[in-house]
Amino acid sequence: MNNVIEKLFEAKEKKSLTFEQIAKELDRNPVWVAALFYRQATASKEEAEKLKELLDLDENIVKELTKPPYRGKILEDIPRDPTIYRLYEIIQVYGIAIKEIIHEMFGDGIMSAIDFTIDIKKQEDPKGDRVIITFNGKFLPYKKW
Amino acid sequence: MNNVIEKLFEAKEKKSLTFEQIAKELDRNPVWVAALFYRQATASKEEAEKLKELLDLDENIVKELTKPPYRGKILEDIPRDPTIYRLYEIIQVYGIAIKEIIHEMFGDGIMSAIDFTIDIKKQEDPKGDRVIITFNGKFLPYKKW
Amino acid sequence: MNNVIEKLFEAKEKKSLTFEQIAKELDRNPVWVAALFYRQATASKEEAEKLKELLDLDENIVKELTKPPYRGKILEDIPRDPTIYRLYEIIQVYGIAIKEIIHEMFGDGIMSAIDFTIDIKKQEDPKGDRVIITFNGKFLPYKKW
Amino acid sequence: MNNVIEKLFEAKEKKSLTFEQIAKELDRNPVWVAALFYRQATASKEEAEKLKELLDLDENIVKELTKPPYRGKILEDIPRDPTIYRLYEIIQVYGIAIKEIIHEMFGDGIMSAIDFTIDIKKQEDPKGDRVIITFNGKFLPYKKW
Amino acid sequence: MNNVIEKLFEAKEKKSLTFEQIAKELDRNPVWVAALFYRQATASKEEAEKLKELLDLDENIVKELTKPPYRGKILEDIPRDPTIYRLYEIIQVYGIAIKEIIHEMFGDGIMSAIDFTIDIKKQEDPKGDRVIITFNGKFLPYKKW
Amino acid sequence: MNNVIEKLFEAKEKKSLTFEQIAKELDRNPVWVAALFYRQATASKEEAEKLKELLDLDENIVKELTKPPYRGKILEDIPRDPTIYRLYEIIQVYGIAIKEIIHEMFGDGIMSAIDFTIDIKKQEDPKGDRVIITFNGKFLPYKKW
Amino acid sequence: MNNVIEKLFEAKEKKSLTFEQIAKELDRNPVWVAALFYRQATASKEEAEKLKELLDLDENIVKELTKPPYRGKILEDIPRDPTIYRLYEIIQVYGIAIKEIIHEMFGDGIMSAIDFTIDIKKQEDPKGDRVIITFNGKFLPYKKW
Amino acid sequence: MNNVIEKLFEAKEKKSLTFEQIAKELDRNPVWVAALFYRQATASKEEAEKLKELLDLDENIVKELTKPPYRGKILEDIPRDPTIYRLYEIIQVYGIAIKEIIHEMFGDGIMSAIDFTIDIKKQEDPKGDRVIITFNGKFLPYKKW
Amino acid sequence: MNNVIEKLFEAKEKKSLTFEQIAKELDRNPVWVAALFYRQATASKEEAEKLKELLDLDENIVKELTKPPYRGKILEDIPRDPTIYRLYEIIQVYGIAIKEIIHEMFGDGIMSAIDFTIDIKKQEDPKGDRVIITFNGKFLPYKKW
Amino acid sequence: MNNVIEKLFEAKEKKSLTFEQIAKELDRNPVWVAALFYRQATASKEEAEKLKELLDLDENIVKELTKPPYRGKILEDIPRDPTIYRLYEIIQVYGIAIKEIIHEMFGDGIMSAIDFTIDIKKQEDPKGDRVIITFNGKFLPYKKW
Repeated sequence: MNNVIEKLFEAKEKKSLTFEQIAKELDRNPVWVAALFYRQATASKEEAEKLKELLDLDENIVKELTKPPYRGKILEDIPRDPTIYRLYEIIQVYGIAIKEIIHEMFGDGIMSAIDFTIDIKKQEDPKGDRVIITFNGKFLPYKKW
Repeated sequence: MNNVIEKLFEAKEKKSLTFEQIAKELDRNPVWVAALFYRQATASKEEAEKLKELLDLDENIVKELTKPPYRGKILEDIPRDPTIYRLYEIIQVYGIAIKEIIHEMFGDGIMSAIDFTIDIKKQEDPKGDRVIITFNGKFLPYKKW
Repeated sequence: MNNVIEKLFEAKEKKSLTFEQIAKELDRNPVWVAALFYRQATASKEEAEKLKELLDLDENIVKELTKPPYRGKILEDIPRDPTIYRLYEIIQVYGIAIKEIIHEMFGDGIMSAIDFTIDIKKQEDPKGDRVIITFNGKFLPYKKW
Repeated sequence: MNNVIEKLFEAKEKKSLTFEQIAKELDRNPVWVAALFYRQATASKEEAEKLKELLDLDENIVKELTKPPYRGKILEDIPRDPTIYRLYEIIQVYGIAIKEIIHEMFGDGIMSAIDFTIDIKKQEDPKGDRVIITFNGKFLPYKKW
Repeated sequence: MNNVIEKLFEAKEKKSLTFEQIAKELDRNPVWVAALFYRQATASKEEAEKLKELLDLDENIVKELTKPPYRGKILEDIPRDPTIYRLYEIIQVYGIAIKEIIHEMFGDGIMSAIDFTIDIKKQEDPKGDRVIITFNGKFLPYKKW
Repeated sequence: MNNVIEKLFEAKEKKSLTFEQIAKELDRNPVWVAALFYRQATASKEEAEKLKELLDLDENIVKELTKPPYRGKILEDIPRDPTIYRLYEIIQVYGIAIKEIIHEMFGDGIMSAIDFTIDIKKQEDPKGDRVIITFNGKFLPYKKW
Repeated sequence: MNNVIEKLFEAKEKKSLTFEQIAKELDRNPVWVAALFYRQATASKEEAEKLKELLDLDENIVKELTKPPYRGKILEDIPRDPTIYRLYEIIQVYGIAIKEIIHEMFGDGIMSAIDFTIDIKKQEDPKGDRVIITFNGKFLPYKKW
Repeated sequence: MNNVIEKLFEAKEKKSLTFEQIAKELDRNPVWVAALFYRQATASKEEAEKLKELLDLDENIVKELTKPPYRGKILEDIPRDPTIYRLYEIIQVYGIAIKEIIHEMFGDGIMSAIDFTIDIKKQEDPKGDRVIITFNGKFLPYKKW
Repeated sequence: MNNVIEKLFEAKEKKSLTFEQIAKELDRNPVWVAALFYRQATASKEEAEKLKELLDLDENIVKELTKPPYRGKILEDIPRDPTIYRLYEIIQVYGIAIKEIIHEMFGDGIMSAIDFTIDIKKQEDPKGDRVIITFNGKFLPYKKW
Repeated sequence: MNNVIEKLFEAKEKKSLTFEQIAKELDRNPVWVAALFYRQATASKEEAEKLKELLDLDENIVKELTKPPYRGKILEDIPRDPTIYRLYEIIQVYGIAIKEIIHEMFGDGIMSAIDFTIDIKKQEDPKGDRVIITFNGKFLPYKKW
């Protein structure tokens, strides 16, 4: 699988394409496309074909991209890279506050991480630009039985 | 410290107040208030005084709330509660994609978790309401020297 | 919280009631009731009131039962008790096969652990009775965006 | 061993066979067949021979399939893939409730994970199809001596 | 539970009884009795009553002894006490050899740890007495389905 | 080293020999021979030479077998294979009881894992054959100084 | 990536250059240059070009050096090398004292590890030379919202 | 010991003293004083007496302060508090670069964490004040023998 | 048990005795006596009686001292205290070299940690006094069978 | 690096030299030489040249031996090999007693593991030869500042 990831990044570099450009071609969000490149998402046949054309991929990579991947092995349990660690720290520091507010607003349940999207925006600011990350997940109430 | 947290929650329950109501009184976001209750944030003297009045708190709790806390010990390394675990899973699955997109948009650096805010909204939807969580953090470029 | 759990088990013992008997009174499944006793589930006000009557519980326990709990802290990461470890071993040995079959039958996605029920039956057998555990969870397909 | 697993999956893909189709040929359950492909189960000589014909396997792979494998090394201790993690979460949240009910129904002992089968069914539902997983294991009472 | 364990050991010490003596009274093996004292085994009502008489136990301890315990939390994952560590080391060094011989003698399966007994004997020897520990467990063949 | 292990198993398979047959040729116990194959034991020159003849081994493997190995790296800390895990579970559940009985019989000290042997027997039984594993280790009393 | 690191060190050795010499050429601090060699920092195009000339690097290595790296995977969680472990020990022993003094001097917040530099000096001393390490990081106050 | 720490902080708060003020009285650095308060350092009798007067301490606390403490248990292995974590992150990201430069400047050896001091300064800066932390440790060359 | 340890240290402090002085009274080595105080060793009845007189101990502590203790739980897996960590570091850095030399001198086997003594001496030296720790353990050759 | 280690051991085996013989040639202790072979120590140019001649080493290995190594990655955190584990167990059981005696003899500080030597001797004994390991490290008192 690492092999597939490597091939995808090489092809992207050779074509000098950004995730944003590829995302436009696929009519998808750049975050999802980057997730696909790391084999954390599955492409439809049409998406895989478009990628093949766009990046001159081999047929076997196209095939790989359409299979449900084994997700989540790509990072350490506690990711040490500072850019990613900050996300982990946010959960350590604010996770339980987020839980309280979700329960106050919605009752007992979770925000789905499956029926779920991420969007990232740049907000320009003279004191330093800001990263705006929006999580949008379906609320799932705990079933009783 | 756990004692302070417990006392705060007891007082909140006695007064039958939600985090949203307390947040309005303090002119703060409910997520920040919940974080304060779990001693993951520090109150100014004014905020602590307002809380004291609102919740009939003891003086020593008011004092505690104005000290920088030891943050982050409140959860397990990998939090097992499903509502919080979903946030962790999002990092495991999409963390590296988020990193790629931040670097593509901003260059080498991080989204600050200190100069940082969280907002949670409810988006009503006939197929199931949705949780919208927005992270807003200053981009910090890696310094060279 | 451990205090609440202890009180519930003491009350159950004092009244000499099984989970099955309590479940009948609440019109719920015994597994869900046992989960409630360990504070892994939330009762409605009506359920909490019925339990109060049935077990002569204090008002504050009734109140506790209606709050969304912090789930999952009750076991070790890898539970050592042999009855529970067997469930863990099943995932270690067959988890990836289950994943393959779910993907073959449903496509890329998961079985929800929230919109989810468990039922346990005894199947009598002269060679040794059998435990039949049935998991019933909604399939959630991975969203693309 | 990873080599054997890889060869088996390549052969399956080349022949465009599902686990269900292979299971029918072997007169076995698809879950068991998927477990066999990941070397978590042992084939009889007859089963291995049938597989050889069906998938054009090399003789040495056939031989490998008939040896008791070293089980359980295939996943991380806490599997991060969301489809498999949900099974782990079920144990974290409901494992102790399952233990209570098993003891209430059968006395002190365990559900065997060896004299044990798994079956997966799809239950169609307009609100979203459901995954039904059934565990069927012999109850083993704790011996005294 | 630790409380129960402590009370049992205090009672045993007060009566100056060895596990061997208690085992004779209960018509059980001393290893099983020691396991019962650490709440790793369950007594029948008769056994609990006999123990009560023998050791002047409180009624609530008698009751506790007849409930299936939460096993295995009593030691660290890798037990550091040298007497117990040697058993762990034996598995680290010889565990895979034991597995090979079990499979060679019995086929694919396990030695049960539930339908299982332990016996310890002293073998006198002028060069140093020897500890003889015998494990006796039912072989369980892996079921296919 | 893994290379040596692999070569030994290939040679054993090519000659279609069981550990029991090899053990007879070397006048050793099959468990010890299996341990030697996994490089958890050291052969004398004579034993290595006999093995060489018996299995047509290369000279460098013969040499390797006579060197004290780095033991114990062959398994995970908590071995996940169910056949080996049962041995680990026995220690988790009964280890402290074994410790108590050793101290009651011999005083303060340990059963050696070095001056130590293992024997495995099959005890036929109409209700299911039984695995009999016997540990025989010298008792070592704690020295005072 | 390890490949890139290796190539950089080989080139440095071939040219017999110290980090200090390379740092002078790049007009950077030697610590930053060593971090760059271990792919814990990102070079500008100009810096990468200068390095290319200085060390006769391949074009693809030059390219690699300008990409934001996955930081922090290079060490164990608790680094065992004694030279590095001493830094870890300093945090274990004095980390909480440093936190107290930062809060006393600056209020609630952190020293940035991104807007941050390190300098190392040698202080000659007849009783043994001394290592002087200076951390210089921007103070970031915790934002409220 | 935690009791001693708590008492010291209570006394400090009652007297409304900063570490800087106490440090001046003891003629010591504030970082060392904060370390002493967390029982990571040992006071001389004179220092302990001065502290006693300054903070009205009990005699037994004075005595405790003069005993070599069990250091380092005060934090988690990987400290989660963001102010302290940044120090840990610096080691993860730059630790190996620091090692390289120490070896380049001094040869094979370490910076002592025992013959060692820490100083913290505030550097005012219109773009945001800066934290300056200086480590000063004796270089210890590796002995050969 | 911690209670016993605490009482022993309090009694030692009250009598203002060093381990060396106590060791002389018991005709034992100070290291062994300190180990006894931490319940890592077992006293004979005579030794316990002498200690009782020397330190005015309660009868139940005397009794505790004569029972084989549960050893090794007193430290973290990797002890963080710098004085103890250095011993751990010695094993990390030189452990495999010690193993090689033991095998070269004695053949395949171990140095016993049971039939074993420790002695600590102070070697005065103008460049700094030296700690001399001597381990003396019986060599145990690996048994074959 | 593992490559260098392997080459050194192959060369040593080819020349049939013991560590003791090599140590004599280098005028060093065999433990230090074994540490050098595992790249836990650094050779001077002269020592590296002597080794080159003695063992017919390649120039690049000679060069490697003169560089400060990354120490300590060679073993697991808790080394499982029984010969090495006994050293670890000694720390677990007696480490805190050693700490007490060092503080009693020297005051607050550590035994250096850098200004440090190890010597191993064989003491012949009719009841079984004994391994004598002597650690000799400079005492470093904790600095105050």
